[in-house]
Amino acid sequence: MEPRGRGAAPGGVSVSAVLPAGGSGERLGGATPKQFCAVQGRPLVSYAVRAMERISWISDIVVVVSPENIETMKTIIEKYGHKRVTVVEGGITRHRSIFNGLKVFAENEFSSHLLQKPEVVIIHDAVRPFVEEDIVSKVVMAAKEHGAAGAIRPLVSTVIASAADGCLDHSLERARYRASEMPQAFLFDIIYEAYQQCTDYDLDYGTECLHLALKYCKTNAKLVEGTADLWKVTYKRDLYAAESIIKDNLSQQVCVITNVKETLAQVGFLLPESLKSQIKVEAISVSLSKNDSCLQNIISGQCYNFVCVNDKRWAIQETQELVDVLEKSNIPLLYPVVLILDPLLLQETVNSAAAVIMALIKDRNPELIGQLLVA
Amino acid sequence: MEPRGRGAAPGGVSVSAVLPAGGSGERLGGATPKQFCAVQGRPLVSYAVRAMERISWISDIVVVVSPENIETMKTIIEKYGHKRVTVVEGGITRHRSIFNGLKVFAENEFSSHLLQKPEVVIIHDAVRPFVEEDIVSKVVMAAKEHGAAGAIRPLVSTVIASAADGCLDHSLERARYRASEMPQAFLFDIIYEAYQQCTDYDLDYGTECLHLALKYCKTNAKLVEGTADLWKVTYKRDLYAAESIIKDNLSQQVCVITNVKETLAQVGFLLPESLKSQIKVEAISVSLSKNDSCLQNIISGQCYNFVCVNDKRWAIQETQELVDVLEKSNIPLLYPVVLILDPLLLQETVNSAAAVIMALIKDRNPELIGQLLVA
Repeated sequence: MEPRGRGAAPGGVSVSAVLPAGGSGERLGGATPKQFCAVQGRPLVSYAVRAMERISWISDIVVVVSPENIETMKTIIEKYGHKRVTVVEGGITRHRSIFNGLKVFAENEFSSHLLQKPEVVIIHDAVRPFVEEDIVSKVVMAAKEHGAAGAIRPLVSTVIASAADGCLDHSLERARYRASEMPQAFLFDIIYEAYQQCTDYDLDYGTECLHLALKYCKTNAKLVEGTADLWKVTYKRDLYAAESIIKDNLSQQVCVITNVKETLAQVGFLLPESLKSQIKVEAISVSLSKNDSCLQNIISGQCYNFVCVNDKRWAIQETQELVDVLEKSNIPLLYPVVLILDPLLLQETVNSAAAVIMALIKDRNPELIGQLLVA
Repeated sequence: MEPRGRGAAPGGVSVSAVLPAGGSGERLGGATPKQFCAVQGRPLVSYAVRAMERISWISDIVVVVSPENIETMKTIIEKYGHKRVTVVEGGITRHRSIFNGLKVFAENEFSSHLLQKPEVVIIHDAVRPFVEEDIVSKVVMAAKEHGAAGAIRPLVSTVIASAADGCLDHSLERARYRASEMPQAFLFDIIYEAYQQCTDYDLDYGTECLHLALKYCKTNAKLVEGTADLWKVTYKRDLYAAESIIKDNLSQQVCVITNVKETLAQVGFLLPESLKSQIKVEAISVSLSKNDSCLQNIISGQCYNFVCVNDKRWAIQETQELVDVLEKSNIPLLYPVVLILDPLLLQETVNSAAAVIMALIKDRNPELIGQLLVA
C-alpha cells in the first residue's frame, strides 16, 4: 500500500495518534524490549509507525518511549524515513506513558513543540504491527459518536477466577466477554480529562484506557469487532508469527528481468508464465546497465523481489549493476533482495526454476545471496 | 527427547489421556481443520500425540475425531508410528467429544475394545503441540490431590463485558483473572460423573471441563501456572509460530559426514569447529556406500540434519546413497534432509560454509535439496 497525500478523516474530524512504546518486554525473554526487536531486519515499532503513517488523515504520531530508548527511536525514524512522528519520554507505567503522549497536544510547558490538539486521538500499540486503515477508521468514527471506542476480539481461552487457595472460584461464560484490543480512539477532551482525574493507583496498576473514560467521564466506549490481525506481539512465538506474515506480504509479487538476447526470449516468457500461478509477476526486458525507467516504475511500485535471467555464465557485473540500481532506489530495501542468475536454465526446467525462485522469495535468506542455483 | 519405556506415574496412579480433535477450525480459515494442518509436513495432531506418548507413564491415548476424519487419523497413526493410541468417534461439540472419549474407559457397549479405566485422566488439545512432561506431571499430581486440576496462564489482553447496545459495560481487573489452558486432569470418576450429570445445554454450549467438575461434583480444581508454550493453535499466525518453533527444535544439532580423503580431513575438522558455536555437532568419517554403524547410531539419536562434505565435483551417487540410508532408517524423517555437497570448499571459506549450512538447516527448504552451494 502506498503512502498517500493527506486525505479527509472519517467524519471530517482532526485525528492524531499516540503509540506507547515504553514496555520492557519481560514476557518475551531476552534483553531487547519487544517493540525494538528486529523482524526481517526492521524493529517492530517501525512497522506499527508505518501502519499509522500510511493513513493519510492522521496528522501527528506521538511515540512514547522510555528515556533510555529515545535516541534509538530517533535513529529508527531517520533510518526508515518516518514522517509526522514526535518522540516523547514515557513514564514508568503504560498509563503514565500514554498520559505523557497526550500532554504534547495540550500542555505547552511539557514540550518545546506543542502539537495541534486533535478532536479525536487514536491510541495504538507499538507491538501491533498489522493494523489496517479500515478498523482504525471504524474506531475513530465510533469515538466521534460515542466519545470513546475500542477494537475487541473473541476470547481464545475461557477466563477463570481463582480463589485465595489457588483453586478455581468460577469460570466466565466465554460468549459474554471479549478481549479488549487496540486501536482505541477517544474524543481528546474526554480521555485527557480522564487522565487528569484518575488516581495514582489507576496510573500505576491500570491497564485499560476504556475503563478510565468510563470511570472518570461516564463514557461507555463503543466496542468494534476487529480482525484477527490486531493481535499483540507478546511472546517469542508472536515474533515468529510476525516474521512469517511479513514474509508472506513481501512474497506477493516478483519482477522478472531479462536482457533481450534471442536465446533467452523464450525463457523470459515461460518463466513468468510458470510463476504466475503462485505470485503476481511483472516481466520486463531491460538493459541493466541503463537506469531503466520501466524498472524504476516497478521499484517505485514497491516490488521487493527481482529475478534476473541472464545468458552469461558469470555475469556478475551486470547482476551487481542491478543490485546497485535497487540499492540506490528510493524504496526502503529492508529485506534481502533475491537475485538468481542461471545461464543453464532450459525451457524444460522452467517449472523447477519457478519452484526454486518461489522458495527463495518466501524464505528471504540473505545467506543465499550470490549462490548459483540450478533448476 | 527419546520415547522411554513405561515409567512410574507421579504419585503412582494409573493415567490415561483424552485428546479431543474434532474441531472444524473455522477461525483458522481454509478447509482443513487446524489439527490436520501440516506443519513441516506433519499434521499438528501428530505432534500433540507424540508429546503425550513420550510420557511413558501415560497408558492409553484416546484421540477423538469427527466421523469423516477417522480414516485420516488412522493413517496418521500408522505413518508416524504412534503407539498406545485409540481413535474414537466424536460428537458435535467439544464436550460431547470428550464425553465419548471418556466412555471408552467405562462403557463396554461403547467400544469393541474397552480400555483399562485410569485413576486419573488427562484432557489435552490436539492443537497444543508443545506440552512438556513437567507440566503434565504437575497437573496430574494436583488432580490426584484435589480431584481436578488445570493449567492456567496470565491474560494477555484486558477482558471486558459488553452491554446489549454494543458498548462497554465493565472491564475486569486483569490481575484477578487467568486464562484457562490445557492440559487439565481429573480423577476419572469425578469427571465421568460430571459428564453423566450435565445438561444438554452444558454439552452443547459449555467450553470448560473445570466448570463441569465444579458444578456437578463440587470439585474446585487446583490451578497450576503453566509455561508460555501451552498456547493453542487458533489462527493462521499460530501455525506460522508453530512451524518456526518446530524448525528451531530441529536445528539443535547437525551431523557432518566426510569421507576420509586426506584433502578433506582438515575441512572435516574445521567445519564442525566453526558450527559448534551455533549448534551441537557430531562429526564422523564414513564410507557412505556402507551401512555404517556409526551413522546408524547418530540417526537413532534423532539428529535431523546431515551435511556431507565431499571431494568429487558431482558425487551425486554417493550423496544419493546417504539419502537412501537416511530414508531407510527407523527415525521418522518428517523433515527435509539438508545435504550439501561442496567440492570447492576451502579452508578459508569454512566460516562462510558454516553460515550457509546454518541457514539451510534453519529454513529446511526442500526446494534446495540437491543444489550445489559455494561457500
